[in-house]
Amino acid sequence: MIPVRPNIAAMEAYVPGEQPAAGAKVIKLNTNENPYPPSPRVAEAIQAELAGGGERLRLYSDPQAALLRQAAAEAYGFPVEQILHGNGSDELLAMLCRAFVGEGQAIAYPYPTYVLYETLAHAQAARVLSFDFDRDFNLPPQLFGCAAQLVFVASPNSPSGTVYSARQLRDLARSLPGGVLAIDEAYVPFADGDNLALARELENVVVLRTFSKSHSLAGMRLGLLFGSARLVSELRKVKDSYNLDRLAIVAGAAALRDPEWTAGNVRKVRATRARLACGLAELGLGVLASQSNFIFARLKDAASAGGAYRFLKERGIFVRYFPARLLDDGLRISVGTDAEVDALLAALKEYLTRG
Amino acid sequence: MIPVRPNIAAMEAYVPGEQPAAGAKVIKLNTNENPYPPSPRVAEAIQAELAGGGERLRLYSDPQAALLRQAAAEAYGFPVEQILHGNGSDELLAMLCRAFVGEGQAIAYPYPTYVLYETLAHAQAARVLSFDFDRDFNLPPQLFGCAAQLVFVASPNSPSGTVYSARQLRDLARSLPGGVLAIDEAYVPFADGDNLALARELENVVVLRTFSKSHSLAGMRLGLLFGSARLVSELRKVKDSYNLDRLAIVAGAAALRDPEWTAGNVRKVRATRARLACGLAELGLGVLASQSNFIFARLKDAASAGGAYRFLKERGIFVRYFPARLLDDGLRISVGTDAEVDALLAALKEYLTRG
Repeated sequence: MIPVRPNIAAMEAYVPGEQPAAGAKVIKLNTNENPYPPSPRVAEAIQAELAGGGERLRLYSDPQAALLRQAAAEAYGFPVEQILHGNGSDELLAMLCRAFVGEGQAIAYPYPTYVLYETLAHAQAARVLSFDFDRDFNLPPQLFGCAAQLVFVASPNSPSGTVYSARQLRDLARSLPGGVLAIDEAYVPFADGDNLALARELENVVVLRTFSKSHSLAGMRLGLLFGSARLVSELRKVKDSYNLDRLAIVAGAAALRDPEWTAGNVRKVRATRARLACGLAELGLGVLASQSNFIFARLKDAASAGGAYRFLKERGIFVRYFPARLLDDGLRISVGTDAEVDALLAALKEYLTRG
Repeated sequence: MIPVRPNIAAMEAYVPGEQPAAGAKVIKLNTNENPYPPSPRVAEAIQAELAGGGERLRLYSDPQAALLRQAAAEAYGFPVEQILHGNGSDELLAMLCRAFVGEGQAIAYPYPTYVLYETLAHAQAARVLSFDFDRDFNLPPQLFGCAAQLVFVASPNSPSGTVYSARQLRDLARSLPGGVLAIDEAYVPFADGDNLALARELENVVVLRTFSKSHSLAGMRLGLLFGSARLVSELRKVKDSYNLDRLAIVAGAAALRDPEWTAGNVRKVRATRARLACGLAELGLGVLASQSNFIFARLKDAASAGGAYRFLKERGIFVRYFPARLLDDGLRISVGTDAEVDALLAALKEYLTRG
């Protein structure tokens, strides 16, 4: 008999967006990757770390990832001791649960949002306080003052692409005297502003960033957390000692040291996002105003959206379809290159005129 | 007020062996790294993954790490669905705690052993059942039939280097009707045998391996777990989706596909281990017979051992000193190159004759 915890036995594993087989010729607009490559400095930094035929790989990586955190401190103007590094921001989200939420305590978030929050809550045997967004994805009033140890708000939110103002988020944090507000800013480089200042201002606010989207490094698993020194020192206790390998550390530092490259890619994605939004609206879809590198667009009903998802997939165009409440009439479409977006719009037009 | 869990507030972070500053000229015999470089195929595989200036890094890595697990299935003759990949075996140890041990449930292990087990137990708010080894590091009888959800046994054990037989470990696993036995085989490639067969034979046994020691890849963070399909599928629920980056996956697969390289390095380490053991015994230290890539050797008392640690450190030779019960009269010395071991023995001789 294996002693599986009841919360684990009852839960399902998080299912990430489908990864097509290596070499498959597809247009991949389903997991919000950046269509453009990372800074050339990233590969150069990795090459340098491989000097001598990879001899250095025999030695452990730096548990503190000082090189990466120092680069982040300079890039974001944040004290280095208030920055923590993660194996993707997913690992940092999990660390927050482990440090702050005991069995039966509560994790709150709006719905629908990043599905991983629910998975992490179940893994932690936490109670879930999930409050529905309205149709325009305004923050649910029930979040304010809720009795949760940890509140997750993604801004921009996924899959809606909507953002929340510093004023709203400050009010939310202040309404949680015994709770931490984690602002998940994975997509914020594509938005008009950010809330990093709140992580300096309020002790119970942390802000999370990822290298997967704006830095084109989804394959390197890098995330950062910004918060008070005390909060970061508690989180460090539940971190794997050597959570980043040597190559990830130098890759992340190199990406941070080439902000022009990142800004250039972000500009292109934002321009294509505007074009995608117009194209979808012209096809009659209900387009949510997005501040992210994806767009959520509604069709006339779930049957139509599910049909579009399958129609596109048969043509080698992957988008994300969530067969879930409040989402099953829409598609989440990552902003690809202009050519990819044109191909998507053409296929979608074919589907809509055919059907 | 930050809602830190009481178990987290009360615990201390795991402190890994000291990492000297980059570029410092030291002889590093304190964290059991391999003194020889990894297979040249590792750097080649990483270079190949970096093709096109690192363009592929913009895409997520494979959550299933199929390439790595397939290589492991072939290398170890184990069904691929019974193998799980970790960001170092440390991450796999943490996953075992999360899947099987609820708050207030128990984790058992002998003492002294790998210090991380205690850290993970505290992070999980688990009760600790810690039973002392005798002076020869025989398995404590209290482990058998103990009421723990999870029992950790490292074989070879650290810092003793001692191993436990398949018969003993089978008896231990069978004595735990409601518990999982995790056999931590981080150091087993340096030993005369292993217990992988037990992970096929018994549903409540898992075996863990690392790439940090025999494969000279401590800097790449790679570990593997072998167990029943059911157990692995429960563990997968508490795994970070994308826990390995793209470069780690290809690095690990390449290392597994060059077994001759690994075997060659292991042979050299074993030969130098014999030489180190003789040298330490000639200096009058009490040497434990080691099946690992380090040796634990006792001096006449704690003052002498602590003094030796500091004396060596001043001369740029790092070894591991544990100022803890049952360990404070000894040093754990990683097996380096012959030249490193000679330098260590000469310095130790100087310390002991000086008085």
